[in-house]
Amino acid sequence: MADKVILLDFWPSPFGIRARIALREKGVEFEYREENLRNKSPLLLEMNPVHKTIPVLIHNGKPVCESMNVVQYIDEVWSDNNPILPSDPYQRAQARFWIDFIDTKLYEPANKIWSTKGEEQEIAKKDYIEALKILEAELGDKPYFGGDNFGFVDIAMTGYYIWFEASEKLGNFSIEPEVPTLMASARRCFQRESVVKSRFDPDEIVAFGFKIRKIHCV
Amino acid sequence: MADKVILLDFWPSPFGIRARIALREKGVEFEYREENLRNKSPLLLEMNPVHKTIPVLIHNGKPVCESMNVVQYIDEVWSDNNPILPSDPYQRAQARFWIDFIDTKLYEPANKIWSTKGEEQEIAKKDYIEALKILEAELGDKPYFGGDNFGFVDIAMTGYYIWFEASEKLGNFSIEPEVPTLMASARRCFQRESVVKSRFDPDEIVAFGFKIRKIHCV
Repeated sequence: MADKVILLDFWPSPFGIRARIALREKGVEFEYREENLRNKSPLLLEMNPVHKTIPVLIHNGKPVCESMNVVQYIDEVWSDNNPILPSDPYQRAQARFWIDFIDTKLYEPANKIWSTKGEEQEIAKKDYIEALKILEAELGDKPYFGGDNFGFVDIAMTGYYIWFEASEKLGNFSIEPEVPTLMASARRCFQRESVVKSRFDPDEIVAFGFKIRKIHCV
Repeated sequence: MADKVILLDFWPSPFGIRARIALREKGVEFEYREENLRNKSPLLLEMNPVHKTIPVLIHNGKPVCESMNVVQYIDEVWSDNNPILPSDPYQRAQARFWIDFIDTKLYEPANKIWSTKGEEQEIAKKDYIEALKILEAELGDKPYFGGDNFGFVDIAMTGYYIWFEASEKLGNFSIEPEVPTLMASARRCFQRESVVKSRFDPDEIVAFGFKIRKIHCV
């Protein structure tokens, strides 16, 4: 039986793109279904009743939720090619450590850049750059967080990389001078075929950022 | 070469006990080092410079941080006996999903029960019970979250189970009538040798809870 793979997703999501990239890294055919997050589909509510969030990967009728959990599941199921996680337990533990760092220490200020103003936004920008600098130090002189290979941490980061331009414009600051090496790695990620195919128009993400800022903040 | 395993820990920690239990499930000999969190050791600061938190597992000189990351590392390194994570990718993804749920949806209200008062504490108690009920529904009629086996989610939950009595006394409410089936599973976990050996005196956790409440809240 051929695998039936459906991805419930939302185009500008930094989390949804992680699942898309992982599926394309593995060459898995999937049906992309765009969700309207203001009017969620009955399928999304049924498949992720706890969080009601995207992305949800539905593999032969069974749901997997939470983006990096989805990526890990994809890596374990389609294990024959393009490993996403390293095979060594210590390297795997390090990768998972950084995922946790990214989804707490980077996530919170990133959100506040578009959703707050004034002093609160200034603090968010500072915290965001600080977290990026820690990540840049971890990257070191490797082309990717995964070393020579685009891996687990790179997939997680690409969700943030696609928002860099929007974050800069929304927060009126520059990221590149602060973390030039990280930015070079981001550009390398943007050239991967899996990323090119998964990324929507950067200008549209900027426009979307200003739209949600207007709704939530002003 | 024999493995050298050191655990930097703090006795009442709901996170530290997860690492202790996992090591004992696997029969790994380790050196337990108690940390003073008000005066952290140079070793802790060196081994976990990003978060400076316990537990840290130091395996042959190399640190692994973040409790469920530590548990997963232990499961992958000492893979010969007592598997902690299921082998099936879908079951693994489900287990990881619940870990994430526990460490967000249960963690936040659990913390507020001891650190807040009045209306804020009432909301925390309500949220806490609500999260426990979702977990009880997931447990269903299985003896453990891991089915017939004490597994990944059970280890995560045991960190909270050891705090149940303290939470009840600090919040002046009862957990058991709300989630009797979950409580039965908690009691089953308390009987595991790995848990018996890892758990400190319940009365001391209650006393510790009141002590930190006094420092942080009153």
